[in-house]
Amino acid sequence: MTSIGIGLIGTGFMGECHALAFRAAPAVFRTRLGARLEMVADIDAGAAQRAADRFGFARATGDWQALVADPKVDLVAITSPNLLHKPMALAALKAGKHVYCEKPLALTAADAAEMAAAAAQAGVTTMVGYNYLRSPAVSFARQLIRDGAIGRVTYFRGVSDEDYMADPAVPMSWRCRRDQAGSGALGDIGSHILSVALALVGPITEVSADQRTVIAERPLPAAGEGRERRDGAAAVTTETATVENEDQTHALLRFADGIIGTVATSRVAWGRKNHLAFEVFGTDGAILFDQERMNELQLHQPGAAPGDRNGFRTVLTGPAHPHYGAFSPAAGHGLGFNDLKVIEVAQLLEAIAGGPAAYPDFAAAAALEKVSEAIGRSATERRWAGVVG
Amino acid sequence: MTSIGIGLIGTGFMGECHALAFRAAPAVFRTRLGARLEMVADIDAGAAQRAADRFGFARATGDWQALVADPKVDLVAITSPNLLHKPMALAALKAGKHVYCEKPLALTAADAAEMAAAAAQAGVTTMVGYNYLRSPAVSFARQLIRDGAIGRVTYFRGVSDEDYMADPAVPMSWRCRRDQAGSGALGDIGSHILSVALALVGPITEVSADQRTVIAERPLPAAGEGRERRDGAAAVTTETATVENEDQTHALLRFADGIIGTVATSRVAWGRKNHLAFEVFGTDGAILFDQERMNELQLHQPGAAPGDRNGFRTVLTGPAHPHYGAFSPAAGHGLGFNDLKVIEVAQLLEAIAGGPAAYPDFAAAAALEKVSEAIGRSATERRWAGVVG
Amino acid sequence: MTSIGIGLIGTGFMGECHALAFRAAPAVFRTRLGARLEMVADIDAGAAQRAADRFGFARATGDWQALVADPKVDLVAITSPNLLHKPMALAALKAGKHVYCEKPLALTAADAAEMAAAAAQAGVTTMVGYNYLRSPAVSFARQLIRDGAIGRVTYFRGVSDEDYMADPAVPMSWRCRRDQAGSGALGDIGSHILSVALALVGPITEVSADQRTVIAERPLPAAGEGRERRDGAAAVTTETATVENEDQTHALLRFADGIIGTVATSRVAWGRKNHLAFEVFGTDGAILFDQERMNELQLHQPGAAPGDRNGFRTVLTGPAHPHYGAFSPAAGHGLGFNDLKVIEVAQLLEAIAGGPAAYPDFAAAAALEKVSEAIGRSATERRWAGVVG
Amino acid sequence: MTSIGIGLIGTGFMGECHALAFRAAPAVFRTRLGARLEMVADIDAGAAQRAADRFGFARATGDWQALVADPKVDLVAITSPNLLHKPMALAALKAGKHVYCEKPLALTAADAAEMAAAAAQAGVTTMVGYNYLRSPAVSFARQLIRDGAIGRVTYFRGVSDEDYMADPAVPMSWRCRRDQAGSGALGDIGSHILSVALALVGPITEVSADQRTVIAERPLPAAGEGRERRDGAAAVTTETATVENEDQTHALLRFADGIIGTVATSRVAWGRKNHLAFEVFGTDGAILFDQERMNELQLHQPGAAPGDRNGFRTVLTGPAHPHYGAFSPAAGHGLGFNDLKVIEVAQLLEAIAGGPAAYPDFAAAAALEKVSEAIGRSATERRWAGVVG
Repeated sequence: MTSIGIGLIGTGFMGECHALAFRAAPAVFRTRLGARLEMVADIDAGAAQRAADRFGFARATGDWQALVADPKVDLVAITSPNLLHKPMALAALKAGKHVYCEKPLALTAADAAEMAAAAAQAGVTTMVGYNYLRSPAVSFARQLIRDGAIGRVTYFRGVSDEDYMADPAVPMSWRCRRDQAGSGALGDIGSHILSVALALVGPITEVSADQRTVIAERPLPAAGEGRERRDGAAAVTTETATVENEDQTHALLRFADGIIGTVATSRVAWGRKNHLAFEVFGTDGAILFDQERMNELQLHQPGAAPGDRNGFRTVLTGPAHPHYGAFSPAAGHGLGFNDLKVIEVAQLLEAIAGGPAAYPDFAAAAALEKVSEAIGRSATERRWAGVVG
Repeated sequence: MTSIGIGLIGTGFMGECHALAFRAAPAVFRTRLGARLEMVADIDAGAAQRAADRFGFARATGDWQALVADPKVDLVAITSPNLLHKPMALAALKAGKHVYCEKPLALTAADAAEMAAAAAQAGVTTMVGYNYLRSPAVSFARQLIRDGAIGRVTYFRGVSDEDYMADPAVPMSWRCRRDQAGSGALGDIGSHILSVALALVGPITEVSADQRTVIAERPLPAAGEGRERRDGAAAVTTETATVENEDQTHALLRFADGIIGTVATSRVAWGRKNHLAFEVFGTDGAILFDQERMNELQLHQPGAAPGDRNGFRTVLTGPAHPHYGAFSPAAGHGLGFNDLKVIEVAQLLEAIAGGPAAYPDFAAAAALEKVSEAIGRSATERRWAGVVG
Repeated sequence: MTSIGIGLIGTGFMGECHALAFRAAPAVFRTRLGARLEMVADIDAGAAQRAADRFGFARATGDWQALVADPKVDLVAITSPNLLHKPMALAALKAGKHVYCEKPLALTAADAAEMAAAAAQAGVTTMVGYNYLRSPAVSFARQLIRDGAIGRVTYFRGVSDEDYMADPAVPMSWRCRRDQAGSGALGDIGSHILSVALALVGPITEVSADQRTVIAERPLPAAGEGRERRDGAAAVTTETATVENEDQTHALLRFADGIIGTVATSRVAWGRKNHLAFEVFGTDGAILFDQERMNELQLHQPGAAPGDRNGFRTVLTGPAHPHYGAFSPAAGHGLGFNDLKVIEVAQLLEAIAGGPAAYPDFAAAAALEKVSEAIGRSATERRWAGVVG
Repeated sequence: MTSIGIGLIGTGFMGECHALAFRAAPAVFRTRLGARLEMVADIDAGAAQRAADRFGFARATGDWQALVADPKVDLVAITSPNLLHKPMALAALKAGKHVYCEKPLALTAADAAEMAAAAAQAGVTTMVGYNYLRSPAVSFARQLIRDGAIGRVTYFRGVSDEDYMADPAVPMSWRCRRDQAGSGALGDIGSHILSVALALVGPITEVSADQRTVIAERPLPAAGEGRERRDGAAAVTTETATVENEDQTHALLRFADGIIGTVATSRVAWGRKNHLAFEVFGTDGAILFDQERMNELQLHQPGAAPGDRNGFRTVLTGPAHPHYGAFSPAAGHGLGFNDLKVIEVAQLLEAIAGGPAAYPDFAAAAALEKVSEAIGRSATERRWAGVVG
């Protein structure tokens, strides 16, 4: 099997996910193209070496530019903090590499557009890590909608709620700084539900949004704001800093064709761990989904049974649904979060090998950032904002 | 509207339910026969008078025999402690009255059989209060099974679990005494799930059962073992008494036609409040139900949708289901526990007026007691026991 | 027991609910004030007489003005089409009667304000039928929030979705005409979730809303647009008429104190029967509720258990929760929709007898209509709209 | 990292699972011992070679005995049809290899005991693939019970239901033949719930069981009874064969210390895909679990909150729970079925490296087979059967 050389930047939560996914994807999906684990880069060279040892990469480096320049690296996977996505991606594109970048693509829509333009010019394959699009149930929902299984879509209601910053004791981090993270909940987790809205329903043309920072000040962490601890148990100082971006965003949406909807996102929603959920209503049915129960989907079709026997069907995913069969021939056995990254990587490898185009690529992700930018603008100006085409 | 005179014995939880149901049923269901609230009896004459005032009965008495003998009383409703069901029912039958008796019909199968024989001889209408049979979802399940909607039944799994005696601090009461209550969980709540098993699947021929008393000793209540407090907050003494019947019963069942199943019941199942639940599997589908979510039912039919779109349907009850439409023309609005008694009373009044026969009547309830007796015998003898025909 | 004379206008779904509630409430709740069923009015005098016979009212009339004028009628209950709420209520107030009016109070905020002013001048007791506020779980949520059980509220997400007009074959009716119903989904079912938002979180100051009519034309019914059939099975003609109000409304909300939230409502949401649902997040917890499972509530409190044992608790309502104990001493047995009206009527009777003030009265309902008006205005003008105080 | 050589026998569903797990486990769990993928064996040598290519094994063979004898193979993983478990395991043990065997260990309790004895004599590490024990929620339940979080256990109710043979059109296969599969549903999927019962509650001493074959005859497959297709879509002939083992098994259980419980299993339970579910009640709480929603667990503790705020808590698994943190630092993101095998393999590698003993090893699995044998004996003899120690 022909293979391409993988260069992975970043060794945090997402870096580990990518590493595992590159190891597993070719075997699980029998992709035409294999993945050679060439190099890991991390600003902490020791962390890079430990990751290389653990996941079987040939080499490690503390210098991401060396990775990008390495002739054996064909594909650069970027899992660094959001701020660095742009310089890394532009460098990789300039070097003619395929680029796989974690979301959000960039801190601003303008940056994202610049990156998309560079990708177009480079003529390589790009992919952005909106991993929930890979959930078999989400892919199936997309397919159902495309096939008209619920008629014409009339309403989309999407939520992406977590509670990872609900505790006021969770310290200040780069996530709360505008120059390092851009928006708060919106870019971090809200962008996921936007990716679903766009994939399932189509382009968004106008938004009316509002935002709020619930916890205005957070304690400074004892050891600086570098690597965050997602469990919030970090030691803190008695000093505090002002949170610069929002804890909650919500917006009314207008899609093409008069379809309306909402998205809402919060990083302070107590009790929610990964509540990426949506309801899509159509003229002939409805679909409900919650990523916390990612292996099922609720489907209602009014004509599917006599009225007294009808209702939402709890469809358990199985090999009849997208992607699932590569993991197991038995329905109801279930996929997990890491499997979504395996699917994503397999789609990326297939795209590079000449298969279906990767989605969302930089262009699609830049379009999403335009919606995100319009949401921010609408919230600031407190009026409807058009998505700048 | 012609009406019959109601005599109600007992003013506890069930007595109040009956009173409300007799007030509401003729209006809700437009029964052909009305209900005149003639008399309430309670061993505590003051309680009887208060109930009469509250619910609009014409008279009250401390002497149930006076009620039974009263010429204006046409129907005797018995909600006294289980021990008294038999003498009261026999007296009422002897007096030619229709009898509506709370479950369990009697403390032993022999007593129940004697009561059924007396009812047959009296030629009146009888009804036993297995109220969960009136749940629209349960009635609908029965109808689905009868209509073959899930093919031939192959398995029945029934549970009736509550936690009203899970706390060891709940004091000794008549419910724990063999001579006053007969069995423990089985007669009190397990009989409900047996009534469902019999109504949905048919006669049970053999059982293999086991029983256990989890809390062997309970404190004696400060004020004697008379009226119990269902919330367990009664004052207790430092003395204890031995619990004489079981906290948990479960049994393997054999129905006619080789269908197999189980019932299990517990009064010490922490967290369960009214978990009367069943799963019925057939050669062409399955039905799931839980009384704690009484306004919905789960139905699976393999042929109802393509495999990738199929699953259990959550059917919300509505006017298309049995009984519901009398309460509301709008689906999903929901019935409550007290409404079940309204349905029961309406069916009783209709039966007296010449409509469909009341079910379960004394004969059917006596048949249930034979199953219950076989379960107790099987548990004692630790072997399969036939239900004595 | 002293009692007051009830005059009921209207004999449809809500008229029947009121009648049953007036029969049951004094007995269930042992209210200090009884209810004498004096008179029923319906534009169809025969229907009025049938309702009187069925529910035990002393008299019937085809002329609602006669009912309002009747000296034995102390309280006028209005369940007529929305258009008639205003003239009937004003006449009843002028006659010095207490008034119990179904929601929405009026077709416009101005009409509602006029009615509230008339009520204030009359000095009588008024109540508007936002019955879901009576759900024990909703009342309990309100109490939890008031007691600080989830800290300060930070977000409210409310939905009121049904599918009673999802089928394009459902004929045109007064509900779709602006001069007879005012708004569409918003006034009919959306007002319920607004009532919950206001009761749980407090005053709303600004809104940004959007609306859409999904099914633009509907067939004319064969027999005129009088009484609708909620099951949609009415015979229709080949002619159609234009739907004049919206099928879907949604809005961003700003409450006092910077709390934000959304409401959304649809009458074309396939599969939803009575999905009045909300999520309330606070600085120290969260509450989830869905009226389709009205007998439970989800409560999360971060400090209630160690992190690895914590999560949303499914609280089954019982006698420890508001109102429930009047119906049953046993938790998990469940109330139904009609019981909510019994609670409402009991609260009304108690208010008249000098107990806690009725809520929402005409003043509170008029305040709600101002929010509703702002939502409509915002949708039309496509910008944030202040709630006119 | 030191590593051991893996020899994998079988390339079906479970063979693929094992292969993926051996690839991933050392990286995910940073085990002290690595896994070298040495050889794959399959009776179809071509399939063996394809699997070797796909998963990265160094060599392939059509002769499992060659694999067992290979000096570079240190651990033999057996995923062949049940019939072959015994000869393969005995050969591997004789050759001094560690053995990892899929469940059920053998077709009879006597065979299993023989294998356990051989393992003891060989002094190697063994592990049997009861993978649901690895579910973080199941491991956590076990830990909760051990820590007394629900007091003393009083009841265990376990179910393992699927519908993979519910369709009468599913053809005859080795699974239905007594000499090749032993029991039917019991050995195939019921053994999983038995493994959970034993791990959570402890030894079972007596059982009363019943069994039934629902579909007595099945069509013969067009291409012989070799490899089955789990989706049931195989071409069939017009000939049929008699199913030799049961579709449904259920049993009453007696554990040590007077704890009682049930297990039930079916392979014809329409709508169930992987419904391995249990309820465990204790003197101070209760735990509910369903593998179809493997990433959550319901926990009730009566003292955890005031009565009116208490109920079952939906605990979403996360890094605070067993095994989860190796996959993700974020709760609620979820594991999938294949991850369970990764956990299993990691535990096996750690055991070989001197860590905690593997569980269940051959001895524990042989003990399970004695329970299984007692269930079969009880069903045949129709009386309580002791588990032969």
